[in-house]
Amino acid sequence: MSGNSMNPTPLYAVLEAQIAGGIAGGEFPVGSRLPTEDDLVQRFGVSRTTVRKAIQNLSSRGLIEIRRGTGTFVTQPRITQDLTELTGFVEDMDALGHAATARLMDRIVLAADAEVARQLGLVVGTRVMRIRRVRLANGVGISVDETYLPLEIGKKVALHDLEIEPIFKLLEQRYNIPLIEAEYRLEAVLAEQDVAAALEVEAGSPIFRIERTSYSVGGKPVDYERLHYRGDLIQFRTRLARRRSPGV
Amino acid sequence: MSGNSMNPTPLYAVLEAQIAGGIAGGEFPVGSRLPTEDDLVQRFGVSRTTVRKAIQNLSSRGLIEIRRGTGTFVTQPRITQDLTELTGFVEDMDALGHAATARLMDRIVLAADAEVARQLGLVVGTRVMRIRRVRLANGVGISVDETYLPLEIGKKVALHDLEIEPIFKLLEQRYNIPLIEAEYRLEAVLAEQDVAAALEVEAGSPIFRIERTSYSVGGKPVDYERLHYRGDLIQFRTRLARRRSPGV
Repeated sequence: MSGNSMNPTPLYAVLEAQIAGGIAGGEFPVGSRLPTEDDLVQRFGVSRTTVRKAIQNLSSRGLIEIRRGTGTFVTQPRITQDLTELTGFVEDMDALGHAATARLMDRIVLAADAEVARQLGLVVGTRVMRIRRVRLANGVGISVDETYLPLEIGKKVALHDLEIEPIFKLLEQRYNIPLIEAEYRLEAVLAEQDVAAALEVEAGSPIFRIERTSYSVGGKPVDYERLHYRGDLIQFRTRLARRRSPGV
Repeated sequence: MSGNSMNPTPLYAVLEAQIAGGIAGGEFPVGSRLPTEDDLVQRFGVSRTTVRKAIQNLSSRGLIEIRRGTGTFVTQPRITQDLTELTGFVEDMDALGHAATARLMDRIVLAADAEVARQLGLVVGTRVMRIRRVRLANGVGISVDETYLPLEIGKKVALHDLEIEPIFKLLEQRYNIPLIEAEYRLEAVLAEQDVAAALEVEAGSPIFRIERTSYSVGGKPVDYERLHYRGDLIQFRTRLARRRSPGV
């Protein structure tokens, strides 16, 4: 194995690209163990230093995971999801070609705490509907969603099979409540016990947390959500323009 | 203490609002220990159950932190930063009224690995400038930034005092390289050892990770960054419109 002699590519980079290609091409499937350092040294005819550097780079790119004592494994790649329009989970997964399903955890009527009340424009203690679901992509739990709805519409929504029917679709198409826009608040947090259990990860795993308040006509808040995405399985992508007058 | 009799607000919500008010008003400053459960029961004349529910809600809102065995403390509030335009750290902190400073970790020339090369549109192994800084707001380390620049401009930028001069400003105003837009990729990860040490947090703390590739005129990539924000200190906010034809 060698780099291009005109513009010599370091050997570790060539090896890195070959292994990445093997992962993309299915030679090294998700969850499988990579060949050992010794195997890679022999197979590609490179030094152990080169193999280690390639492995290290693949690890920092998130393609593989080094588990102490057990070996190096091909990780489940993150889903890259656009964050450019107000969309629901089913729409997002459909756009990416992933099968979206849901598991209903519970739906209950409770008194709005200060934050829920503020987001929905209600008095603290007003009764609201809370719906909790695990959202899955291709059968893997991706997100725990906590949805708060004003009671009147919440009672109607809760009558539907929420493992099948998306709430956005019910609001818009069944109950004629158009969604206009939403405010998103994005955080990185650690999984607490209940979220961890629902997502089948360990407590303390990274969670990409989104709070989203969706508004209908006239700026009326109609849906307040707390979405807890598995940090190791999701990446959000957006494109932002430079402000017109820099430095102002 | 009692709720409004016309629309009875639960006592825990009233207490929650009072404590939140005390935090906002400075009666309970950041870092201070809250009064004990017993003290709160006595002071507000409510039951222990009510106190516990209020404390639990304040904790889930991130206003306080329950530390096993030591008590309940008022947490440093997160900085809420808009994610709506391409802006640099100094611009962001200026807009929020926070004093932005920087500590230079290192600046070195190295060979672009596969990802750096891809983002900057270079051949793998091409030499690039890497600049690493800790960014601080009001003296607290908020983010570890790893900036990769093409070598020609990177060499010039690296001559400046990067603890004082923002790189965006140097590119735009000193070297006449206008920034037009950037692609952002957002993830929640756990702090690795080096990032944790630079931010003075424990390894495994939550990190809001941003990869950002900024483009100049003609879509030419000029700056590729890996930003590691302290998850407990930052929240990003954006507003997205509903797509025009739902369900398409």
